[in-house]
Amino acid sequence: MKILIINGPNLNLLGKREPSIYGTMSFDQYFDSLKTLYPIVDLSYFQSNSEGGLLDCLHKEGFNQDGIILNAGAYTHTSVAIADAIAAINSPVIEVHISNVYKRETFRHHSFLSPVVKGVIAGFGMESYRLALEAFINQD
Amino acid sequence: MKILIINGPNLNLLGKREPSIYGTMSFDQYFDSLKTLYPIVDLSYFQSNSEGGLLDCLHKEGFNQDGIILNAGAYTHTSVAIADAIAAINSPVIEVHISNVYKRETFRHHSFLSPVVKGVIAGFGMESYRLALEAFINQD
Amino acid sequence: MKILIINGPNLNLLGKREPSIYGTMSFDQYFDSLKTLYPIVDLSYFQSNSEGGLLDCLHKEGFNQDGIILNAGAYTHTSVAIADAIAAINSPVIEVHISNVYKRETFRHHSFLSPVVKGVIAGFGMESYRLALEAFINQD
Amino acid sequence: MKILIINGPNLNLLGKREPSIYGTMSFDQYFDSLKTLYPIVDLSYFQSNSEGGLLDCLHKEGFNQDGIILNAGAYTHTSVAIADAIAAINSPVIEVHISNVYKRETFRHHSFLSPVVKGVIAGFGMESYRLALEAFINQD
Amino acid sequence: MKILIINGPNLNLLGKREPSIYGTMSFDQYFDSLKTLYPIVDLSYFQSNSEGGLLDCLHKEGFNQDGIILNAGAYTHTSVAIADAIAAINSPVIEVHISNVYKRETFRHHSFLSPVVKGVIAGFGMESYRLALEAFINQD
Amino acid sequence: MKILIINGPNLNLLGKREPSIYGTMSFDQYFDSLKTLYPIVDLSYFQSNSEGGLLDCLHKEGFNQDGIILNAGAYTHTSVAIADAIAAINSPVIEVHISNVYKRETFRHHSFLSPVVKGVIAGFGMESYRLALEAFINQD
Amino acid sequence: MKILIINGPNLNLLGKREPSIYGTMSFDQYFDSLKTLYPIVDLSYFQSNSEGGLLDCLHKEGFNQDGIILNAGAYTHTSVAIADAIAAINSPVIEVHISNVYKRETFRHHSFLSPVVKGVIAGFGMESYRLALEAFINQD
Amino acid sequence: MKILIINGPNLNLLGKREPSIYGTMSFDQYFDSLKTLYPIVDLSYFQSNSEGGLLDCLHKEGFNQDGIILNAGAYTHTSVAIADAIAAINSPVIEVHISNVYKRETFRHHSFLSPVVKGVIAGFGMESYRLALEAFINQD
Amino acid sequence: MKILIINGPNLNLLGKREPSIYGTMSFDQYFDSLKTLYPIVDLSYFQSNSEGGLLDCLHKEGFNQDGIILNAGAYTHTSVAIADAIAAINSPVIEVHISNVYKRETFRHHSFLSPVVKGVIAGFGMESYRLALEAFINQD
Amino acid sequence: MKILIINGPNLNLLGKREPSIYGTMSFDQYFDSLKTLYPIVDLSYFQSNSEGGLLDCLHKEGFNQDGIILNAGAYTHTSVAIADAIAAINSPVIEVHISNVYKRETFRHHSFLSPVVKGVIAGFGMESYRLALEAFINQD
Amino acid sequence: MKILIINGPNLNLLGKREPSIYGTMSFDQYFDSLKTLYPIVDLSYFQSNSEGGLLDCLHKEGFNQDGIILNAGAYTHTSVAIADAIAAINSPVIEVHISNVYKRETFRHHSFLSPVVKGVIAGFGMESYRLALEAFINQD
Amino acid sequence: MKILIINGPNLNLLGKREPSIYGTMSFDQYFDSLKTLYPIVDLSYFQSNSEGGLLDCLHKEGFNQDGIILNAGAYTHTSVAIADAIAAINSPVIEVHISNVYKRETFRHHSFLSPVVKGVIAGFGMESYRLALEAFINQD
Repeated sequence: MKILIINGPNLNLLGKREPSIYGTMSFDQYFDSLKTLYPIVDLSYFQSNSEGGLLDCLHKEGFNQDGIILNAGAYTHTSVAIADAIAAINSPVIEVHISNVYKRETFRHHSFLSPVVKGVIAGFGMESYRLALEAFINQD
Repeated sequence: MKILIINGPNLNLLGKREPSIYGTMSFDQYFDSLKTLYPIVDLSYFQSNSEGGLLDCLHKEGFNQDGIILNAGAYTHTSVAIADAIAAINSPVIEVHISNVYKRETFRHHSFLSPVVKGVIAGFGMESYRLALEAFINQD
Repeated sequence: MKILIINGPNLNLLGKREPSIYGTMSFDQYFDSLKTLYPIVDLSYFQSNSEGGLLDCLHKEGFNQDGIILNAGAYTHTSVAIADAIAAINSPVIEVHISNVYKRETFRHHSFLSPVVKGVIAGFGMESYRLALEAFINQD
Repeated sequence: MKILIINGPNLNLLGKREPSIYGTMSFDQYFDSLKTLYPIVDLSYFQSNSEGGLLDCLHKEGFNQDGIILNAGAYTHTSVAIADAIAAINSPVIEVHISNVYKRETFRHHSFLSPVVKGVIAGFGMESYRLALEAFINQD
Repeated sequence: MKILIINGPNLNLLGKREPSIYGTMSFDQYFDSLKTLYPIVDLSYFQSNSEGGLLDCLHKEGFNQDGIILNAGAYTHTSVAIADAIAAINSPVIEVHISNVYKRETFRHHSFLSPVVKGVIAGFGMESYRLALEAFINQD
Repeated sequence: MKILIINGPNLNLLGKREPSIYGTMSFDQYFDSLKTLYPIVDLSYFQSNSEGGLLDCLHKEGFNQDGIILNAGAYTHTSVAIADAIAAINSPVIEVHISNVYKRETFRHHSFLSPVVKGVIAGFGMESYRLALEAFINQD
Repeated sequence: MKILIINGPNLNLLGKREPSIYGTMSFDQYFDSLKTLYPIVDLSYFQSNSEGGLLDCLHKEGFNQDGIILNAGAYTHTSVAIADAIAAINSPVIEVHISNVYKRETFRHHSFLSPVVKGVIAGFGMESYRLALEAFINQD
Repeated sequence: MKILIINGPNLNLLGKREPSIYGTMSFDQYFDSLKTLYPIVDLSYFQSNSEGGLLDCLHKEGFNQDGIILNAGAYTHTSVAIADAIAAINSPVIEVHISNVYKRETFRHHSFLSPVVKGVIAGFGMESYRLALEAFINQD
Repeated sequence: MKILIINGPNLNLLGKREPSIYGTMSFDQYFDSLKTLYPIVDLSYFQSNSEGGLLDCLHKEGFNQDGIILNAGAYTHTSVAIADAIAAINSPVIEVHISNVYKRETFRHHSFLSPVVKGVIAGFGMESYRLALEAFINQD
Repeated sequence: MKILIINGPNLNLLGKREPSIYGTMSFDQYFDSLKTLYPIVDLSYFQSNSEGGLLDCLHKEGFNQDGIILNAGAYTHTSVAIADAIAAINSPVIEVHISNVYKRETFRHHSFLSPVVKGVIAGFGMESYRLALEAFINQD
Repeated sequence: MKILIINGPNLNLLGKREPSIYGTMSFDQYFDSLKTLYPIVDLSYFQSNSEGGLLDCLHKEGFNQDGIILNAGAYTHTSVAIADAIAAINSPVIEVHISNVYKRETFRHHSFLSPVVKGVIAGFGMESYRLALEAFINQD
Repeated sequence: MKILIINGPNLNLLGKREPSIYGTMSFDQYFDSLKTLYPIVDLSYFQSNSEGGLLDCLHKEGFNQDGIILNAGAYTHTSVAIADAIAAINSPVIEVHISNVYKRETFRHHSFLSPVVKGVIAGFGMESYRLALEAFINQD
């Protein structure tokens, strides 16, 4: 089973940025623990701060993964282009958020991506990614 | 570990109601399979079509559960009272939805509950409940 | 032919409440006259002030009536749950209102129920129920 | 008893236009059946695609009919002038719609006419006209 | 000096329609008194219930009048086409209203015409027309 | 003088729920002190978490009390049905809130009840109820 | 006949301020010409840049004038207090504007005063005041 | 105990202005009766029609009163400056209204002041002031 | 190939009306040049200032043309009826505009027609019509 | 004549992405056919998924092309920066869309680009590009 | 060089009011330091809590200053009259704010003044005034 | 003292783009003059048309500058990601604009960045950058 995790803008700062919201662990550390926890999954990881970079990755990988776990960060709320890319590829996508976005500013309550993804998981810290992985593994 | 699943209005019709959206399995069948899957969790279940009934249950159980998995159905979008109850109790609550509510009518995109719950899981069918259970079990 | 009339909140006060809007006849009196007028129809009647009570009734009766005439009163404008119940059952539902709701406060102009019912009849006093009955009887 | 049925724009195409929404019977056929069904009513019929034509008819007939059944079609949602005409005449008017307008585009949910008519009947196909006729005949 | 008064929909009913708002004098009576009062003005009058009829008149007369006094009635609030016609012709136009439209329903507070006319006079009963005439006569 | 205090959803948790907003005294304690303070008033008390339960109580008591002090809690902001019940009964109703609702989330700034009550008192803690009592006692 | 003209904020700058919108004549010059033109009218004039000053004047003069011509300038669009004062006094008030406010910024299209005045005259330059005077003189 | 009552615009007209809404008693009469009723309170009174005058008073008295009872009249709905002044001083302020503002025009439903005052009392006629006084006297 | 060009309100003034926006050529001149340019197309032309006139034409021609090029002018932004007619007929319709409507007032940015036409061409002056013709000729 | 076609995000997937909306031909195939069809035009082509990449291209080419045909895809609806770039360069730009965007989600009905381009062509499939080319070739 | 600093409502409380937002220095102290720092500038200062007082000052000084630095406080967000005064005078005006108004309540994000001033400086504490002074001194 | 100036999209065209709004000087020329003017400041400069490029720069430099002067151009109004980056870094940021953005289109009045920056300076041409520099140098 091939699963790709894609992180969007500012998520490279995880562990460094606003730790009261996002925690103190870097994503690399978390990703390693995840690979250890799910050795049978062919897990890969991509991060970009560029909307175009995320689109390029979705186009390239979106036809040969069994699932994509996407935390598009701030682009969640502003990018019609990423929503279009998700609709255009055939790998299923799960939208995840580390924080409970619905507790924050109003403009974070709307996601352009939610209507085109399989499901949404938000508010569980890094654990949100693992729950998405569980969802892909356990699906029929 | 004590976990309570609460289902709100119309969810007693699961397996019967709009199967193209909600699937054909009744919730009782699903609940049994969940208990089998997680024998060490003290799982219980409550359903009511009444907003007041849900409030009474949250008040009674909301101080002695390790976690509550709440699918408030249509009340998600209209009930300030249930949001207030969640804020008033001390058991953590996870909001779940069977369907991806963000793919449906606009009035289903807003949840009064999301700002007061720990996290939100939507769109994975019955599996949404299991993912919430995973989230409670795995939390630190 | 089995037809159920369901009245929602405050409609038990008919004949007593704001007679300039709702008239002075109680619903029981009207219901008796309706049974006399349509002896061949198996007419029954239910009223509840509770949203949950209305849902329970729709679930119980909504699979064995030839038609349901629903005046959900104030819940018309606030209840997503009743709309979901109407969509979930298979008896057809006609929405009726005694007053012309479009002449009153703006919040009464929107109905969550109208998009899921067969049709809407409003503004004819008690006669609205009889017209709904005519609609069920005369349908092909 | 004198009753006038007025049909607005595009309703001359009934039976021809979007049959999945409006059915396959022309209005002339329906009107004949209605006259047969209610021989004691002095029924007449007018159709115009022009807002001004509808106003002229309302002005001319609106002081000597016992009731007017008006399906203003698309003008329902855009014409303040027709609403003003209804308020200006003294024959009572019932607003009818063949389709359940509340199931369609949002701009069809608002009617300029509803606040000035006696009542509204929508969603019963051609039967909507007969129910309006019933309402006029049966009123006290 | 050539001045044309144009009245829009339902204004042919003046003296007959809602006298508590519009008074009991017909416009013909008022027009005669106006001609008597201002004998040196070449006053003419046109009324139509049809938006197209009003456009045709504006096109035909709008290049050879010294002023046009327009009470577009309900079309004031809905007609972009009449506003376009006013902008297209070269006779100056004054918008008048018999009633104080700002005291009435909210949809009567907006005028598509006001941004393209010379000025607006509202609320003085029939006198509104005479004031507009004064404005044309007295302009430099 | 007969005065009924009605508390809505979650107010049974007073003293327990969010003490920084609602204080630490239970309502029963407060009610006893109120009865001691106003011995000549025939004070009674009802609480329900159910909208239907509140309606039933308003219907039953709303024709034989000299005044009703209503804290409808979260239903203040969502219930058209309770507003309709207040309009339907003949005992005057005063709306009270423990917290200053205008300091909190925007959705708490709107009350469906305020337009149909005698007056509104908000922000004085438990004292809000006593002020309402004073208002009933002192009225002419 | 006693008529008072009241000018609000910035209108003391007339002739000096934005002449392309407001012209080059000072109001004092215009007022003199108006007195010459209507010698039989007991005309007086008041100007203040202060909302409170305008209120004081309306309170003092609003019970002994036969008419008040009010150009409240920018306060037209922001002052509920002046609207309340107009409703509180018994001299009739006509609202005038030198420019056609409907041609300018959107926030100038709304007037708090219009719903409580007798009528509105806008867009005729200084002539707007004379037309208002005509309206008072000519009323029955 | 030092308590200051401040009345805003148009409230000097009490007893004279719209008696169907505000009653026929002047505020001076009421104020005298209040001083008689509460002899131990050091009660003073200020009224101004000017927003600036109200600000000056709040600045001067807002640091040496035990409480301020403020009926800001129309400025309630438009004045950010008065809200800022209330936040800037340290005497607690109670907002009162004679009429039930929530029964009137929509623009009277919003108060800039409510989020910065201790509490709000509206709809009890002159009695609203006495209830506010009670609230100050009885606070702990 | 049969193609009908339909022009709506005010377009009879082309060449005369606001030449800075619409140019100085009359439509008749342009139509002649178009027929010369495309001799093999059976081109016809209709213009009306009346919404009803446009509907009548669409009904009559809308079942026997290979394509209709429609510039509905101001009705583009206000007419649900024309949109309904386009949906009701079976000739494909292309919506054209001479000016770039998106550069003009906001109310010109919305078209009721766009969702029911084949495509939209705006901003190319008279050339917009020729491009629409090209689109019909070149379609597969 | 030098014409540049610029395609924005996801348009590299043409022929692969949602063929029911966008067709099955790749843009490269179409571009070749276009060059064959218009041999005298110096046609070039650029595609980028990156907003910044599109800006860089517009800056570099926007001063030396006779025309630019731009399908900005999803950035049409979200990019103020591309609109600013179009306004900053001096080559004229035509906005094209393959699908009729006005038939799709509401957020696709607004274009930041339309107010700064020469014209808009939408809904003709690949043919939209050729029509834009025609518009450039045929302009005076 | 003559520069006038104008402070609006509540700014006389600087150093006393909400020090966490506005700091602890009085404006008089700051003004003295500013005069010391810029001895060659003819600096003067005016403060008023009254909108009318600010207008009077702008009218009197607005034709003989080289620049005006205006902190209109709360009137920034509510006063069309001050915006009109700024447009009417010929001294250039810079709008300053001590706090970063964009970090505070939404109603503080809109300024009626910004569209008519030379520029805006917000968020630098007292330093905002000095930066404005720099801007006037350094302009060409 | 290390200060970094960051310019966003289209600002590389300064001196070339819309000189009536942005002036004719290139930013490089201005930057050189600024370095000459403030020799003791370690000034650097970065420009990118790419949102991702700006994010990368903010991440890399945002932990080792004493201040960042950011003109994000059009991204000011659309980029949640840049706002998140500013909140994530620890160098203070000042938002600058060359033009007075509040005088331009409505969509330029909102900034996602303003709530997370230290302060905002807009409308002073290139001088806006120098004022920001002054603000950093002069801060305590």
